[in-house]
Amino acid sequence: MTTEKNSAADEAQIRRVIDDRSNALSAKDADRVVSFQAANFTHFSLAPPLMSKGSDAAALAAWFATWQGPIGQEIRDLNIVAGDDTAFSTSLVRLSGIKKDGEKAELWFRCTLCFRKIAGAWKIAHEHESVPFYMDGSFRAAVDLEP
Amino acid sequence: MTTEKNSAADEAQIRRVIDDRSNALSAKDADRVVSFQAANFTHFSLAPPLMSKGSDAAALAAWFATWQGPIGQEIRDLNIVAGDDTAFSTSLVRLSGIKKDGEKAELWFRCTLCFRKIAGAWKIAHEHESVPFYMDGSFRAAVDLEP
Repeated sequence: MTTEKNSAADEAQIRRVIDDRSNALSAKDADRVVSFQAANFTHFSLAPPLMSKGSDAAALAAWFATWQGPIGQEIRDLNIVAGDDTAFSTSLVRLSGIKKDGEKAELWFRCTLCFRKIAGAWKIAHEHESVPFYMDGSFRAAVDLEP
Repeated sequence: MTTEKNSAADEAQIRRVIDDRSNALSAKDADRVVSFQAANFTHFSLAPPLMSKGSDAAALAAWFATWQGPIGQEIRDLNIVAGDDTAFSTSLVRLSGIKKDGEKAELWFRCTLCFRKIAGAWKIAHEHESVPFYMDGSFRAAVDLEP
């Protein structure tokens, strides 16, 4: 793309944030996940409410506690666009694992991350994760889609 | 925020793109909606599939044709973060109207837009729209939430 002028260094730094955060999610390390978030972090999550503002390690830890063992995170189709101090990434993520009640969980969701470079470090200012829903009147979340 | 260094002009231009696009959606003008999209546009839409790539005015027009009259678009909590050539916005949007089959449609969804400045104009490179879903085993899309 002639319009792309990503700094290779910025893109590499963002990729490392994404990888490190994914590993922290798998390892259920709530404090480390939150460490990648900017001070004014906003979240459009898979679960309600519509929006949450600010980091919440306690809520994340409570959610982690509903899983047995590690949480699988497979990232596909990662695309990073980095400007001087603002960037975004898009990807599809396969979440998998076993819940404490024995339920086998597995779904693909869409993940958009928006970054700010703050004091020289790329931080996640906004996170949007979702699945679409079926417009057939059932309003079922489309948790059975694959890329 | 001391870390914000948005150009007021860039933010104003992005706000105008968002407003103009919203008006084009309300007016069901598919070609005009698509005119705000970058060449490498990617979309995480309310409806399946997980991801679509490229602009598709025909698909948009087909969706518009399922509505009677205009489509209501109310934007709330709009936040714009603009760098030199990369930007993003977040908002909650209330979609409302009457479908051709007489169904009254109304829902709040989350909207993340990611922008590139291309040849001096801010274009939408990525759009992510969603509702969360209930994690109570029902897997119902949460189309009844309000901000």
